[in-house]
Parts: sequence; C-alpha cells; structure tokens
Amino acid sequence: MANSKYEYVRQFETHDVLLPDTYIVVRIDGKKFHEFSKFYDFAKPNDERALKLMNASAKNVVLKYKSDMILAFGESDEYSFILRKDTKLFNRRSDKIASLFVSLFTSNYVALWSKFFTDRPLDLKHLPYFDSRCVLYPSLAIVKDYLSWRFVDTHINNLYNTAFWQLVLKCGMTPQESENRLSGTVSSEKQEILFSDCGINYNNEPEMFKKGSLVTNKGSIIHVDIIKEIDQLFEGY
Amino acid sequence: MANSKYEYVRQFETHDVLLPDTYIVVRIDGKKFHEFSKFYDFAKPNDERALKLMNASAKNVVLKYKSDMILAFGESDEYSFILRKDTKLFNRRSDKIASLFVSLFTSNYVALWSKFFTDRPLDLKHLPYFDSRCVLYPSLAIVKDYLSWRFVDTHINNLYNTAFWQLVLKCGMTPQESENRLSGTVSSEKQEILFSDCGINYNNEPEMFKKGSLVTNKGSIIHVDIIKEIDQLFEGY
Amino acid sequence: MANSKYEYVRQFETHDVLLPDTYIVVRIDGKKFHEFSKFYDFAKPNDERALKLMNASAKNVVLKYKSDMILAFGESDEYSFILRKDTKLFNRRSDKIASLFVSLFTSNYVALWSKFFTDRPLDLKHLPYFDSRCVLYPSLAIVKDYLSWRFVDTHINNLYNTAFWQLVLKCGMTPQESENRLSGTVSSEKQEILFSDCGINYNNEPEMFKKGSLVTNKGSIIHVDIIKEIDQLFEGY
Amino acid sequence: MANSKYEYVRQFETHDVLLPDTYIVVRIDGKKFHEFSKFYDFAKPNDERALKLMNASAKNVVLKYKSDMILAFGESDEYSFILRKDTKLFNRRSDKIASLFVSLFTSNYVALWSKFFTDRPLDLKHLPYFDSRCVLYPSLAIVKDYLSWRFVDTHINNLYNTAFWQLVLKCGMTPQESENRLSGTVSSEKQEILFSDCGINYNNEPEMFKKGSLVTNKGSIIHVDIIKEIDQLFEGY
Repeated sequence: MANSKYEYVRQFETHDVLLPDTYIVVRIDGKKFHEFSKFYDFAKPNDERALKLMNASAKNVVLKYKSDMILAFGESDEYSFILRKDTKLFNRRSDKIASLFVSLFTSNYVALWSKFFTDRPLDLKHLPYFDSRCVLYPSLAIVKDYLSWRFVDTHINNLYNTAFWQLVLKCGMTPQESENRLSGTVSSEKQEILFSDCGINYNNEPEMFKKGSLVTNKGSIIHVDIIKEIDQLFEGY
Repeated sequence: MANSKYEYVRQFETHDVLLPDTYIVVRIDGKKFHEFSKFYDFAKPNDERALKLMNASAKNVVLKYKSDMILAFGESDEYSFILRKDTKLFNRRSDKIASLFVSLFTSNYVALWSKFFTDRPLDLKHLPYFDSRCVLYPSLAIVKDYLSWRFVDTHINNLYNTAFWQLVLKCGMTPQESENRLSGTVSSEKQEILFSDCGINYNNEPEMFKKGSLVTNKGSIIHVDIIKEIDQLFEGY
Repeated sequence: MANSKYEYVRQFETHDVLLPDTYIVVRIDGKKFHEFSKFYDFAKPNDERALKLMNASAKNVVLKYKSDMILAFGESDEYSFILRKDTKLFNRRSDKIASLFVSLFTSNYVALWSKFFTDRPLDLKHLPYFDSRCVLYPSLAIVKDYLSWRFVDTHINNLYNTAFWQLVLKCGMTPQESENRLSGTVSSEKQEILFSDCGINYNNEPEMFKKGSLVTNKGSIIHVDIIKEIDQLFEGY
Repeated sequence: MANSKYEYVRQFETHDVLLPDTYIVVRIDGKKFHEFSKFYDFAKPNDERALKLMNASAKNVVLKYKSDMILAFGESDEYSFILRKDTKLFNRRSDKIASLFVSLFTSNYVALWSKFFTDRPLDLKHLPYFDSRCVLYPSLAIVKDYLSWRFVDTHINNLYNTAFWQLVLKCGMTPQESENRLSGTVSSEKQEILFSDCGINYNNEPEMFKKGSLVTNKGSIIHVDIIKEIDQLFEGY
C-alpha cells in the first residue's frame, strides 16, 4: 500500500496470534440456517443434499490446507476443522485463519450449490452465510474430547429430530404432540418410540445422519463411530 | 446443543468483545487476487466487471446491516465497512462481526459472479476468497483519516497502474521498461508521462477507477473526492 | 538475555498493546482490605492515617509519570490513575502499565507505612497488596463519567458507612440494628437519621471522607466536588 | 459498589481469562535495577543480600499460593512462578494474577529490606519496583524448557559477570579492557581466563550465584543443576 500522512491509522490494527504448539479448532456455523433451510424446503429431519453440500465444501477447505489439518468433522450446518498443533498457517493469526476458512467454505458452498440442489437455484435475497471462530486446545486428550462432544451432539440431536419428525410425518401428530411424546425420554426410549409408533429401526438410518461426516486430511469423507475410533483418528498427532 | 460430559470443552472458547462507543471498521481483502485476476483475465489496469461485482457484493452487506453502518468504501479487491460507534451488532463480538461480514460478502461475490462475468463461469478450482479483520477507531477524526488513507491509496495505486499499463499496452514497453520509466516520479510527472507518451489525460479516466467506490448506508454507490467531502460524509455521526 | 536452544519459549509471550489515542485508566484495589484493616485496627468508618497513606503513595506514582498523567482519584482502598490519551508510556503495553503502577504504589505504601502508622509497625504475616487493571475509554465524556462514577460511589459509601458506624458507636446499636435502621433509606434520610439519632451534621464531616482525594498531575492533593468541577478538571485534554 | 447512572463505564472493562488446562508462568522483573543496584552499592558481580531478599520475597509469594504452585525460580532481579495447569486462581484472570503477584512480591521486598540490608535503609526517592506478566505454556515439555532457559541464562550471565568483574577488581583492568578480554570467548575460555588471570576456580563460586535459586512449593530454597534435575522437579505434574 502506498504511503501517506494518513497511514498512521494502521497502528490501530491488532494481530491476535494464537498460542504456539497448541491445537487450533476452527468451527464454522450456519447463520440463521433454520430460516434458510425452510426457505429452500430442506427435507426433515435431514436433507441429504444439504449435508453433502456441506461435506463437499469442507473437503475443499481441507484439501487446500491439508498439510496443516488433522481432520474435519461436520453435522447439520456446522463444521469443525482441527489443525495440527505445530501449524504455522498465516503465522497463527486468529483473524486470518477464522476469516479465510469461512470465506473459502462459503465460496465453495455457493459455487457447488447447483450440483446438489439441481432443481432449486439460489435466490439472491436468501444467500447462505456462516460465522467462524478459532478455539485453542492445549492437549490431544482435550482435542479428542472436543471431537467426542460434537459426535455425541450429532447423535443426540439426530435421534431426537428423527423421532420428532417421523411422529409428525408418519403418525400424523402435530409438532406439539410429537414434542410432548418425546419429552423427558432417554435415548433408548426414543428409539423404542420410533420403532413401536413409526416402525422405524433407528439402527437402519443412514450413517451420515447418525454419525455426522468426518473428512480425513486426504479428503476422504467417512462416517464412523468417533467414540470408538477416537484414539486411532489422532494416532501420530 | 445437547449436554454431555464432553461439554466442558466450551470453556476454552474466548469471546473478544470490542471496546464500546468506538467506531468499528471491518476490512475485507481478496486472498491471492493477483493470481485470481490473472486466471480470469481481468482487464488491466482495472477490470470494470470485477469492480462492479465488488460493489454489488458490498452493497448487499451494507443493506443487510444498514442501521449499524455509516458507509462502505472499496477499491481493487478490498472493501472497508465503517460501523457506527454505538452499534450493538452481534454484541460487538469481534470474531462474529469479522466472519459473518466476510462470509456474506463472499456468498454474494460468488452468487453474483455470472451477472458481471457473463461469458466466463467460475472454475471450481479457482474460487475467490477473502480475509477479514475488525479495527477499532476511538474518534471520528481518526475514522475520517482512515477513509482518507484508503482514498489516497486508491489514487496513488490507480495512477501508477494506469501509467504502467498504458506504457506497456499503448507504447509497447516491456513491464521492466515501464517500471523504469515511472521509477521515482511524483504524481504530476506520472500524469505528464501518461499524457505525453500515451496521449491519455488522467482526468478523463473513469471516476470509479480514480476515486474508488463509496456505498452509502442507503445502498447508493457513488464516486466522490473523499478528501473534499470528508466532513459531509460523516455529518451526524 | 543470553541465547540458548531453549529461547524459543519466548514465542509464547504476548504483548497486549492498548488502543492508541484512547484514555487509559489504571485502577488499583486493595486485596482483602477488610481483613487487613481489621488486623491493624483501622478507625471506623474512616481511618485518616490509612487514607493519607493511600494519598501519599498515589502522589508518588503520579509524580513519577506526571507527563503522562491527567489526574488520579482515590477513596477507601482504591486509586484510579487517568492517563492522557496520547501517552506512549511503556509503548502502551497493558501488562507493563498495570504491573509497574501497582508495584510502585505498593512499594510506596509499605515504605511510607511507618510515617502514618507511627505506633503500629507492619507485621510480616499481614502485608498489604493490591490488584491492578487497565481500562480504556475512547472519549473525554466517558472519562468524565468514569471519574463521576468513582466520586458518587465515594459519597454513597461514605454516607452509609458514617451513619452505620455512628449508630453503632454513638447510639450503642448492634451492627444488625444499625443495618436495619438504614435499610431502604435514601441519602437525605440517612443524613436526617445521622443528625437526629447521633447529633452529627454530615456536612461537617471532613472533606477527605466525603469527597475522596484527587491528586493533580503536579502532585497536589485536593478534595473537591467532582460533579461540579468535572469540566474544569479535564480542561485542555 | 453503589449504583449510579455513571456505572455503565464498567462495560469498558475487559477480563482476559487464561486458556484452561495450560501452565501459567508469572515472571517478575526488576524495573531499572541497574540504577537501583548502583544507588544501593550492590556488591559486584553478585550481592548476596540482594539475592537473599529476592528469595525471601519469592518464598512468601509461593507459600501464599502453594496449592496452585509447582515451583519458583529466580536469579538477579527476576523471579518466575510456575503454576499448575489446573489452577483456578482468581478464575485464571491474567490481570489479577500478574498484578497481585507483583504487588505481594513488592510488599515483601520492601518490608523485608532491612533484614538483609541491615545498615542501609531504603531511600524514599529510590524505591524498588517490578513489572510482571503471565505467559502460557501448553505442555510440561515446554515448561521444562522454560525453566531450562532461565537456568542456562543464569549460568551464562553469571559466568560472564564473574569473569568481567574479577578482571576489573582483581587484575585492575578497566571495564573496557575487561570487556575486550572476554569478547568472543566461549564458556570454557571464560573459566580458563578467570582461573589463569584471577586465580579463581569458577566451580568454587557459591551455588546460589552459579545456579540461581529454586523455591519448592513447600517453601524450601535450593540451588540445583536444573538441566540434570528437570524431570524430577516436575514429577507428578
């Protein structure tokens, strides 16, 4: 940039450098995706096209920064990118990492939209956008707990949403009736209700819905029981 | 989000709240746009389609947050959004503001691309993305200097680029010869060279090239002499 | 410092630079001073020696950094140092400013103790210490409100404490009875009770107790009605 | 604190919470101690009274927070306090920890001064003060390197200072001659010069000078070869 007497304003900029030798998680979340998914008539409880679009977008982010990446994990309208503790990406500047990841992700999401939503073009008044943040984790044990947290969250949310929507769609309950039926139930009871009331065996639901999607740093998208595989997933990091 | 024994990992998140009663500038910059503009054969020294696409994207960001916005200003592959000092947007969380602005901007840029680059579709291997940062300015005087800084920068860069490229395109100089010809010259000399060597009167160049683009908080895109108009632009803030 | 293969650990240090052109307030607070004042039998509701020791310590801090200082204000076991917005002290590093101020203040407090507590030496098991923080204020109007806040706080606390302790000391109430008597009363009622029950005219109480202490950047200690004088106190800053 | 219309100014305060589950090092450094040590005629190259005063002050800080402390290490006019990674002290607020540690340390230094400098009272115009900072270290391996860094620094500085001052004091060199004599020498050469020119066997120098002082979290002050003992020192953390 050119020099001028106004350039002193640069002194007001700050650069938040993330603690070295510490794992960085970049988490991206859809902004107002409840409204967004309604506008585009996403299937309930899960829209396969939408999830695959998230995965394809995340995969391209992973591949761009694969040497800095351990893996990424996504569910619903969120994605977490887990970076190696020794990454030097953008000199570990928090704002650079958070903003470039979310911008690249968004760019892919919009550019790839028509591949997944083949008969529903994006409306310029209803564009998708996401927020982004960097979180630091000082040890591999806590990074594993982070990923386990997102995985358990996926399970709990998906089981509830599956039961809730099947009661509405298959049994003709109102949303309120469905909510009441599930209120206070634990996981096994929800699975029981789903089976007895709707004839659906939760175990037969698609793996992507039940387990979320994991992108390896080679760009493979897999659906695994993260709690069981957690040690293997981080072997060598 | 559902509860689990892993949820403690949320304690590692931080929320950087921006100082109250202080002007916030969100500046977005194209990432590797030199390469990007080459790939898509942007016209030199300025590509009108690309600038108008920047403006259209910025305009949509401004309109989404118009009650928090004073104005936005853009040139080349960057845009600055200047927010009111009393904005409570996203509780003044720095990461939320920086990431949502850049994501919404990127979403528009990609979605609007085909309107401006009518015969050149986006290549999935060469998608645009941007970084983003929040900068705080404690007084209106310094905010004015910020905007003046970007304006003077626009002028200096554009004059240099115009002279440089016209010497190459019109006079058949090599880039090295052109660089040598301009080396060490002040503004008036560059204008002189441009006129004498290339027959171009810099004053007749398009306003958008010379002055950058200013988006008012009503969404109008104007090209004005910011140094002259600076007090008027911020009247009432 | 000497070089070694271990020196990389310096990269983990961060330097929080305070926003330029913004007023800095350094506020120092006594740690566990309730206990401390009990151990040294401070007079209730105000101990003149203790307040004068605070003032003398603050004065020495002010004089050390007088060219960076606008003024300082103290009451009870706290002191606020208000720095010019253009100060470059310690390159505006927050940790340097906060720590050096509190260390110099503490050094003075301990070294000067015996001048004010002439017959009560410091006990090594019960030493005074203070915490410290930097707070930024972007405009003079808010700095004035900051000082007004501390001043009003001084008034409210001192009126309550004076009434509370006089009811105990002069009227023989228990602390609980005194608290009940004052519960829910406004300022004028507290002054009324103080006069009717204890024969004390609050207006005649010492200025230092009622108004706190202000240290000018020349080192004078004055007791003024800050709300009335607020504009004059900051004239020229 | 009492309520008033000015209380909104509290919103400008920030609270920098240190990353959980991460080791915290609080390092305290003497401010202008070169000047300070000159004024009080500290012995060269090491003043035993001054070092013992540092140790006694640090010991009291350690004992106050011993359940949060692993150990502390000091040399010259600096001290590092290494806190457990699971400490919840002051809710891990950086400004609280840094300021209270330096204030308590300073309080002890001044209060204990006369015990170590029995015939040289503190001069009110030349009081000691210290800066303070918190540094985070994500793993025990790096904490060990931190301590090793300070230890090696102690060795290098002390060997140089010992050689430099003995050449001046015993051999009658000017400071410039002494500096020239040592310039470019490695450790073994400095030891050789010290022995050949001054008749001093560096190995026989006091342990406290050569190794610095380590305060255990039980309050013992020991002088050990930290590089050799490093694993044992942190066993169990």
